[in-house]
Amino acid sequence: MKDTAISEANPTPYHAPSRSGLTLPTVGIDIGGTKINAAVVAPGEENLLSLINAPTPTDSVQFLNTLVDMVETLKQKHNAVAVGISTAGVVDSIHGRILGSTGNMPALKNLSNLRELLTERINLPVHMENDANAAAYGEWRSGAAKGAENMFAITLGTGVGMGIVFNGLMYRGSHFYAGEGGHIAISYHRERKCTCGRWDCWEAFASGTGLQKTAELTVEAAPETAQAEFLQKYCADGKVTTYAVIAAWKDNNHIGVQIMDDWHNHIAVGLGSLINVMDPDMIVVGGGLAQFVNFELLQERTRERSMSNNFQLVPATLGNHAGIVGAAYLAMETLK
Amino acid sequence: MKDTAISEANPTPYHAPSRSGLTLPTVGIDIGGTKINAAVVAPGEENLLSLINAPTPTDSVQFLNTLVDMVETLKQKHNAVAVGISTAGVVDSIHGRILGSTGNMPALKNLSNLRELLTERINLPVHMENDANAAAYGEWRSGAAKGAENMFAITLGTGVGMGIVFNGLMYRGSHFYAGEGGHIAISYHRERKCTCGRWDCWEAFASGTGLQKTAELTVEAAPETAQAEFLQKYCADGKVTTYAVIAAWKDNNHIGVQIMDDWHNHIAVGLGSLINVMDPDMIVVGGGLAQFVNFELLQERTRERSMSNNFQLVPATLGNHAGIVGAAYLAMETLK
Repeated sequence: MKDTAISEANPTPYHAPSRSGLTLPTVGIDIGGTKINAAVVAPGEENLLSLINAPTPTDSVQFLNTLVDMVETLKQKHNAVAVGISTAGVVDSIHGRILGSTGNMPALKNLSNLRELLTERINLPVHMENDANAAAYGEWRSGAAKGAENMFAITLGTGVGMGIVFNGLMYRGSHFYAGEGGHIAISYHRERKCTCGRWDCWEAFASGTGLQKTAELTVEAAPETAQAEFLQKYCADGKVTTYAVIAAWKDNNHIGVQIMDDWHNHIAVGLGSLINVMDPDMIVVGGGLAQFVNFELLQERTRERSMSNNFQLVPATLGNHAGIVGAAYLAMETLK
Repeated sequence: MKDTAISEANPTPYHAPSRSGLTLPTVGIDIGGTKINAAVVAPGEENLLSLINAPTPTDSVQFLNTLVDMVETLKQKHNAVAVGISTAGVVDSIHGRILGSTGNMPALKNLSNLRELLTERINLPVHMENDANAAAYGEWRSGAAKGAENMFAITLGTGVGMGIVFNGLMYRGSHFYAGEGGHIAISYHRERKCTCGRWDCWEAFASGTGLQKTAELTVEAAPETAQAEFLQKYCADGKVTTYAVIAAWKDNNHIGVQIMDDWHNHIAVGLGSLINVMDPDMIVVGGGLAQFVNFELLQERTRERSMSNNFQLVPATLGNHAGIVGAAYLAMETLK
């Protein structure tokens, strides 16, 4: 195990469909800000094989070593023939280069040519993909949107991610910037700054950060008694957090209900716009906050906003493993 | 010429590129609310051939007869081998059926199977396409966006139309509703109703109708003296029209400038969102109001809103003939 701590988790039930006789075990790696997850996707199998993880190193050399170790471990165990990597940032998946911001991963700043470096060390073909793209592809290939002709997946977390599959192909746009759906504007009033520096992005309302901002503003504007009750009952240290809102909402507290109702509206406004542009047959909603979405309510609000009503809005089914699955399948498809 | 009045106009300079040895003269027809325009597109030619037009009949039988007459005229003259039709409404271009609202064309209400009826009468294959799609395809095939990998075209008129070409293919979505970009929401405040019945559609701000609404609200809110001056100088009958705004804007009148500045902002908010989702290399802006767009200003405002700056924003070059050209080319491509 050399100098990196890799731990093995229980494999997740999951069915990897085999298509056109393709049965090549492939390593899928999902690089996150704190953890790197990896496993083998083998068409025909019911589960991800040998799910392992390691803390994400901040140093570039250590980072590369960790990836090499993880791949070697999985490669030996399952005869993997390729590697698919899902990572934050704008990724030129054709030339295997990381072009844009990689958020909270300092190690990647010096590794824009990660694919090249990794290929040299592990002697396997490597495909790299933006994480939101990989997650969408995973959900389309063997998750909630199996069989869709045109679909997109959004992930509601700290931000709002998006990936698009058109006519069964990953859609990346002309410069690998497609699917920045989190940054469509849902207001022209310049009322809320997004972390990207632009105004009124969907993400600034629909993400966890957005939900918290809406909560702060709503509590601030609430009548004195209701405000005091909310703060006292749900906000231990006086801070209005997303957890406080969720607790209040489950309690049927008036302020909590209003905030969550607004949040569903904010999500629906963006979804309606995306549907009107792309006319998909399926939309997958995943990410850490998806568990708090009332899908019935969201459907209803989204239908009010959309021209076509022939779409299915469904929760993601691959959870944290969508990136691993999607990246591995994209690597397999690219190899063909 | 039987019972329909068809008049011939001067052909427009226009170059029809020939691709992969395709040299099949094809009739392109653009069905509008008041006029039907038709011509022959012949790859290799510099101009549209024999541009003719006729008033749009309101009666279904007369409507069909007019189309038959126009096709026969052009077919005989140029040995046309196929027909492409551009029409308002949601068009199932695979099965050649008009599915949705056809606005101001009563004749089409009983002609959802127009392709079938026409094919029987003229004995030529017919392709039907939504007008915004056909216009976008025309601009991509031989207009302002020639050679683009991914592009979309918007038309600024009474409404806002949109057509999308991805990877060199007309993108229609899963139910032929794609490209309803005019109905993305640019506000979540429920502040302005769109003619479609939904709230705050881009079209309700960026179209001619939207511009006029913005003008009315701005004049209403202006200080008394400025308001009186604006009304007296530009609004002959006291009505705030788009024409009045344009005149005031050209005059550098403060209210006129403010309205047109807001209008550019409204257009930019929608364009920025569309770019962030689709990451195109080219965007074409056409329609009756495109002549009033300050493209430099619009570029600047749009770039403030978009994640990728690698796009070209250009005026349409085929004018009123984009639909004819696009429909004809789509008919040719379908025939292949």
